[in-house]
Amino acid sequence: MTKTHTVSIIGASGYAGAELLRILSRHRHCTVRGLYAGSSAGQSLTGAYQWQKEYAGLQYEEFEPSKLADSEAVFLALPPGEAAQIIPSLSHDQLLIDLSGDLRLTDSSEYETYYGRQHAGALTSKAIYGLPEWNRSSIGSSRLISNPGCYATSAILPLAPLLADGLIEPDGIVINSMSGVSGAGRKAALELNFTEVNETVKAYRVGDHQHIPEIRNALESATGKKTSFVFVPHLIPITRGIYTTITASAASMLDPAKVAESLGKHYDDDVFVRWHASAVPEIRNVVHTNFCDIGFRVIDGGKKIVLMSVIDNLGKGAAGQAVQNMNIACGFEEGEGLL
Amino acid sequence: MTKTHTVSIIGASGYAGAELLRILSRHRHCTVRGLYAGSSAGQSLTGAYQWQKEYAGLQYEEFEPSKLADSEAVFLALPPGEAAQIIPSLSHDQLLIDLSGDLRLTDSSEYETYYGRQHAGALTSKAIYGLPEWNRSSIGSSRLISNPGCYATSAILPLAPLLADGLIEPDGIVINSMSGVSGAGRKAALELNFTEVNETVKAYRVGDHQHIPEIRNALESATGKKTSFVFVPHLIPITRGIYTTITASAASMLDPAKVAESLGKHYDDDVFVRWHASAVPEIRNVVHTNFCDIGFRVIDGGKKIVLMSVIDNLGKGAAGQAVQNMNIACGFEEGEGLL
Amino acid sequence: MTKTHTVSIIGASGYAGAELLRILSRHRHCTVRGLYAGSSAGQSLTGAYQWQKEYAGLQYEEFEPSKLADSEAVFLALPPGEAAQIIPSLSHDQLLIDLSGDLRLTDSSEYETYYGRQHAGALTSKAIYGLPEWNRSSIGSSRLISNPGCYATSAILPLAPLLADGLIEPDGIVINSMSGVSGAGRKAALELNFTEVNETVKAYRVGDHQHIPEIRNALESATGKKTSFVFVPHLIPITRGIYTTITASAASMLDPAKVAESLGKHYDDDVFVRWHASAVPEIRNVVHTNFCDIGFRVIDGGKKIVLMSVIDNLGKGAAGQAVQNMNIACGFEEGEGLL
Amino acid sequence: MTKTHTVSIIGASGYAGAELLRILSRHRHCTVRGLYAGSSAGQSLTGAYQWQKEYAGLQYEEFEPSKLADSEAVFLALPPGEAAQIIPSLSHDQLLIDLSGDLRLTDSSEYETYYGRQHAGALTSKAIYGLPEWNRSSIGSSRLISNPGCYATSAILPLAPLLADGLIEPDGIVINSMSGVSGAGRKAALELNFTEVNETVKAYRVGDHQHIPEIRNALESATGKKTSFVFVPHLIPITRGIYTTITASAASMLDPAKVAESLGKHYDDDVFVRWHASAVPEIRNVVHTNFCDIGFRVIDGGKKIVLMSVIDNLGKGAAGQAVQNMNIACGFEEGEGLL
Repeated sequence: MTKTHTVSIIGASGYAGAELLRILSRHRHCTVRGLYAGSSAGQSLTGAYQWQKEYAGLQYEEFEPSKLADSEAVFLALPPGEAAQIIPSLSHDQLLIDLSGDLRLTDSSEYETYYGRQHAGALTSKAIYGLPEWNRSSIGSSRLISNPGCYATSAILPLAPLLADGLIEPDGIVINSMSGVSGAGRKAALELNFTEVNETVKAYRVGDHQHIPEIRNALESATGKKTSFVFVPHLIPITRGIYTTITASAASMLDPAKVAESLGKHYDDDVFVRWHASAVPEIRNVVHTNFCDIGFRVIDGGKKIVLMSVIDNLGKGAAGQAVQNMNIACGFEEGEGLL
Repeated sequence: MTKTHTVSIIGASGYAGAELLRILSRHRHCTVRGLYAGSSAGQSLTGAYQWQKEYAGLQYEEFEPSKLADSEAVFLALPPGEAAQIIPSLSHDQLLIDLSGDLRLTDSSEYETYYGRQHAGALTSKAIYGLPEWNRSSIGSSRLISNPGCYATSAILPLAPLLADGLIEPDGIVINSMSGVSGAGRKAALELNFTEVNETVKAYRVGDHQHIPEIRNALESATGKKTSFVFVPHLIPITRGIYTTITASAASMLDPAKVAESLGKHYDDDVFVRWHASAVPEIRNVVHTNFCDIGFRVIDGGKKIVLMSVIDNLGKGAAGQAVQNMNIACGFEEGEGLL
Repeated sequence: MTKTHTVSIIGASGYAGAELLRILSRHRHCTVRGLYAGSSAGQSLTGAYQWQKEYAGLQYEEFEPSKLADSEAVFLALPPGEAAQIIPSLSHDQLLIDLSGDLRLTDSSEYETYYGRQHAGALTSKAIYGLPEWNRSSIGSSRLISNPGCYATSAILPLAPLLADGLIEPDGIVINSMSGVSGAGRKAALELNFTEVNETVKAYRVGDHQHIPEIRNALESATGKKTSFVFVPHLIPITRGIYTTITASAASMLDPAKVAESLGKHYDDDVFVRWHASAVPEIRNVVHTNFCDIGFRVIDGGKKIVLMSVIDNLGKGAAGQAVQNMNIACGFEEGEGLL
Repeated sequence: MTKTHTVSIIGASGYAGAELLRILSRHRHCTVRGLYAGSSAGQSLTGAYQWQKEYAGLQYEEFEPSKLADSEAVFLALPPGEAAQIIPSLSHDQLLIDLSGDLRLTDSSEYETYYGRQHAGALTSKAIYGLPEWNRSSIGSSRLISNPGCYATSAILPLAPLLADGLIEPDGIVINSMSGVSGAGRKAALELNFTEVNETVKAYRVGDHQHIPEIRNALESATGKKTSFVFVPHLIPITRGIYTTITASAASMLDPAKVAESLGKHYDDDVFVRWHASAVPEIRNVVHTNFCDIGFRVIDGGKKIVLMSVIDNLGKGAAGQAVQNMNIACGFEEGEGLL
């Protein structure tokens, strides 16, 4: 098999960028052409890459749009704000997958409220929300994909089937998430210093996290239901992984078999969403994978349900899902490079 | 100052027992007379204790009721079930503080449902629930104190003021907690092996944890309100500490000043409950202390509130609170040994 | 490609067993036939395996020699002592790879001193020591392979080239190692409880660890040099990985170029040993791989050298190396399933 | 008891500064007058301090020498280089304790080689090396104390008795240390980001760490012996604590009783050095204390010894030892505030 599909990564020196490189290196159809990074431009790859002969010569380059001329797919793994500045300069003949969040909200005032900066404008309307399990056919014909947020992915996947099937009330939902520290990005920051994070927990952006409108919009778009929920993210001392625990009220008395039926109906043909009627999800089962595992408990005699989901924030929550989207958009097997 | 108050610890080789010894060793009025342990009986103290001259001679002893004759206070730091077997054999002239949970529920069927063993019977009705901030005067005149559970303490303290003052709806509350591993006790168990716990998160006993009836009863007793809530505990990879995040609906539009007023009214005279109108609690601020820190966010335009609390599960969640209770019952300064 | 090579794992429920299953599942020539476990026999696979459809039906079975009839290769991932009891009952037409340590020492008194149990006898003389980089041709024609110990692998690989080339003194070597907790095996043990291991470090078996004779014998066999060294292992709070730091005296004034030349000569054709003339090894670069990374510093004006090596104790230190050995013995590509 | 001794901390916002504040707050003779910090000047105290009423009003101030007028003792907890710039401007009527390292080496070329900046000059000759167990009487009459380095403390304390008593060879010593991340200081740095440090180990400054000349000089000054050794520090994923493992050759056949006798002779009157003839030290036994625990194994039939020591790098390795020095210089009980 020849590797005929040429790809480039902009923002290659961050954690999502490094994970993209790791996945694409074992992808049977892809050759990584360019690795672009800002402050790391001109530097060799570090970490495990410097020990590996085939990467020994590689360097991060300064990005210029013209360098992408022969790339068939481009991944943008930049922080929010930086991506929006680059995207307009890119040719849209190529497949472009943006991991930044800059294309996730079409409403400019919503973006400005939650992201605290100017909206990317009309471009956002052209981007397809890259959640394959609920949007596969649109992704297949798209050239501009907005890759979902990590918390958003972990919340939408367990909620959407039950909402779509009318099993739970769309209001009064409570979403609590715990994230590993790599979710905050690869950067020098006192609050991410090991000593500040280890052996402690801290909630943050309570009630105003930027994934709140993304979850709300995606749930409405996937299920037709307007929802209201409280979302509280927490930083916990692990490197990778998100645990999301959701409490919702039953629309009418729930029984576990109906929940299982709903999850099965929506996900049994999906490679990357696994659900279990009795086991409780654990982050370690999905770390370094593109899986989302979903478990549940029907409690209070059928009046309430607790849904639990886990993903790797750099896998299904970022780079893994981005490659899954590329596979769909390019007609490769959906799991190529990811299994 | 002479140390004239003699105390003993039953179950001294566990984590709560060791923490009791640590606190009581610096208590200006107490002398630790006996350290009783089951499987460790006959062994010397381990860990830091074996390096410290004044403990070098000490051994755990096999427990017999007669050995407590000259102890003025006795702490039971045994697992549930074991405590219930011992308590009836003890003289109740002494102050007895039970950390096991066996005396926390007066309703035998409730106990049997949640603890999965036989109830300790009528004895439980004589025990005072040792949550000083809501029960101080009863504790002061009690000889049998049931020390609260760790999760329960972390949930009741933030909720009780707002419930008592009618600021939040008593129904539809969602309580999510994350606990360090020492909360599971000092024992050999595969699921507590470092490799099984590190770099992962796992919810457990979703909807059926034994602290559920304890929280419900204590809230009703403290505030007169019957509540309904969902409680989900999670095990996270830290040694000590609990983080509890609670979502509740406002009774009528909430403003942050009213929440602050309520917390201030109930807790400003309490040494060990600290609250903050803007800072978010962090576990590391309370580890190795007897403090409970409470923070909050009023969100959704005043319709919802998120309360966050942190304690050290071995401090305010076990040994610290037990000593606080002893201090109250014995007329010592409430913070003696704890500040 | 059809998977025509049938393999079985005895001791499949431990950490090395689970890692073997993970590697063999992606091996293009192997089908895993039987998973044998003692106390877990009759149980379904847990952890990530229970979430994965293709493993959903699998169970651990009780081991009986007859069940191996159609297995072409058998991995024994049992604790020392248990393996020795089983090996004599096995047919030696099959390729047998023992990870236990029971076949590593041919001298019975040495085994009894360091392992504290009876030696497996003459069988040990038939076993080939499975360190491919120094023993590849013997492995290729062997049917009984003794897989090296994790610490031993991490110490032998950096030392052997410099000893073989006469660059360092064979006496006065000091080897300090730090190991993650999975190295102690998957078991319930108080000293492996998260709370006992987290946020601390502890040396153990100082000067009498069972890998001492293994290192000494393997170095002599590989290089013809009798060595003397002190070996001190430490337990540190990480899940996987070994860091080994070795100090040795130069035979004559060393310069870094000679060290690089020696490492290059011995390892540049090896896929799984990587060395670097300036970068310092880090455990995270080799976790979940079969690599051993080696770095060094020549200090004190050429009189001393510090060698540093890292492996994943479950990868190159156990399951990875075992599969590498099978690949060599079966004529597969050496890196199959491992890259 | 009135608190009549006024102290100030320069560099109060770092980890050592915060630990000084914590210790001095419970010191029965000290009042903390000023907390000086560079970039944090004008800010309120953070972390646990913001939750505690008595600290609620406190702020870090910009440092000016005149502000120290009424401080009887001044602690400098600044990074190397910054301290040297401030010290000459201070009045030396006050007791000054410098934790930075800038006064530890009297030889300017040695300082410049290992610290990479200009030496503080003649001032360094006036400073007393504040290792109480070997320098108590000089400390008692000093007004300028250079507080030892953390690694240095952990290496000197176990080695000095055996060297002084001629039990070990002064040459060929190997010192391996592992340090928690707080030892690198409170700062924003990519290499200290949780994700970069967690689940890995890395040696650094192999053979050229700035504590090498400090250890050599202090050992010579304490024991009269010139030594040669290799020192390799490692960063490990814990917050606090240092583990140091030392290998040395016996001067003549060693037996454990002689080692115990030597340690006992030198340390049995010292409060803060604990030794044990059989137990192996563990970091967790000394975290949040001012203790140094020392253990040992005589191996290879008496030809070699392995010494192991543990300290809290912020306790006996920094703030704790600094307060111990102040206690000695001011005539307080040596353990005041530290037990």
